[in-house]
Amino acid sequence: MRDMDQMEAGFRRVTPAGEAVPQSRAVVVEAPVAVEVNGIGYAVMMATPESLEDFATGFALAERIVAEAGEIEALDLHGTDKGTIVRLAVSPERAAAVMARVRRRTSDSSCGLCGMDNLDTVHRALPPVPASDIAPPAIFAALAAMRDHQPLNRATGAAHAAMVCDADGRVRLAREDVGRHNAFDKLIGAMARQGLDWDGGFALLSSRCSYELVEKAALAGCPMLVTVSAATSLALERAASAGLTLVSLARDDAVLFSQPTR
Amino acid sequence: MRDMDQMEAGFRRVTPAGEAVPQSRAVVVEAPVAVEVNGIGYAVMMATPESLEDFATGFALAERIVAEAGEIEALDLHGTDKGTIVRLAVSPERAAAVMARVRRRTSDSSCGLCGMDNLDTVHRALPPVPASDIAPPAIFAALAAMRDHQPLNRATGAAHAAMVCDADGRVRLAREDVGRHNAFDKLIGAMARQGLDWDGGFALLSSRCSYELVEKAALAGCPMLVTVSAATSLALERAASAGLTLVSLARDDAVLFSQPTR
Repeated sequence: MRDMDQMEAGFRRVTPAGEAVPQSRAVVVEAPVAVEVNGIGYAVMMATPESLEDFATGFALAERIVAEAGEIEALDLHGTDKGTIVRLAVSPERAAAVMARVRRRTSDSSCGLCGMDNLDTVHRALPPVPASDIAPPAIFAALAAMRDHQPLNRATGAAHAAMVCDADGRVRLAREDVGRHNAFDKLIGAMARQGLDWDGGFALLSSRCSYELVEKAALAGCPMLVTVSAATSLALERAASAGLTLVSLARDDAVLFSQPTR
Repeated sequence: MRDMDQMEAGFRRVTPAGEAVPQSRAVVVEAPVAVEVNGIGYAVMMATPESLEDFATGFALAERIVAEAGEIEALDLHGTDKGTIVRLAVSPERAAAVMARVRRRTSDSSCGLCGMDNLDTVHRALPPVPASDIAPPAIFAALAAMRDHQPLNRATGAAHAAMVCDADGRVRLAREDVGRHNAFDKLIGAMARQGLDWDGGFALLSSRCSYELVEKAALAGCPMLVTVSAATSLALERAASAGLTLVSLARDDAVLFSQPTR
């Protein structure tokens, strides 16, 4: 799926003085990706169609479709002119559990699900993550190296990146996507497929920290999540409940550790 | 729902030299909002719980739950400790259509829905929007005024804004949210509730332009959408199909009009 991550598009560049000149620019590709589980449509995500095997694996973990990558029995990509279909095969037991959840999620009137039930599902417990003892210099080292691992963002200015860094801040693996959640799913999926563990390292994301990123980090056993931009209230709350060390507004001159830290 | 948009949180600010000092900062509130239609849970969104009546109205329009705000027969907010429930009442006919769609969306095995069907729904036709004849100076005027209408972002550094501007670039109305889609839903909902039309003006968003923003703009009859950051491939494609003038990477020194323009 190489070269599917960006395309050239034509623009007219207009200045305040009224000058207008044609300009060609690389644009990040955003395309529908339909995820099927055992032949049933599960969700359609908008993603950059690059490293989709990694994405599908990370997505299946984040959605708790499987508990580990080895439970994915087959993973097949099927390109169409409307987008990509990702076909996951899991055990009949896993598939049955997923379908029960999908039906519940659907707000079908026959099950009487209401907004209150739906709110409950947002607050389901997260697994506690291991304590982190990353030294701050490792964070600044990773920040300094970050840009070198973001070719898609350098070309298009509109892609997010997720990276796993070692305890010294060296970037071990990076993935990019038009969406921050997808980038993190791709990273976690790639780690699972390559058999990489956190090994005392941490995750570094180019984006803000919303609650879903904390959920994904905790489910993946990530001990520390560093994001370049700010964290939301719910991200802070959920990180505290999982014991996840959250570092936000990570800039060259300072980073913010959330309180309480362990 | 005032003062629900931000909260103070404690951090530890750490510099590369190893200095660590406590710091208190405003954090944008991200909280679950469950949308119910005629008593049935429709979706849970993560949003900043401010202007939620506007949000719910704009969301109902964007999701095509109703075709115009007047079809919402009642709109009630119910706060809980887990988030807010927004209760919409619509006609039985509208509710039946929504539920049929929700069931279809659910990927229930009994209807045999697969990834291919799901991809089709992404490409449903958009209504053509009126042609725009906004002069570029209006865009630069709006950009210069933008920051004054983003109090939540000034405080937290992590909120997106959506604004409607008149033909001269004066900001008529602005809404903010942790999510760019929510901010635009709030703006469109507020316009509908206040009876404001585009009146030869345009929408200005602080974010990147992903395809959903184009969908929302077209459904709201918006003739021109200006975004501060870059547009994705699908946003460009969908805007062209709706005849929506898209202006991206809108900065002080230049803006990019997408091609073809009408």
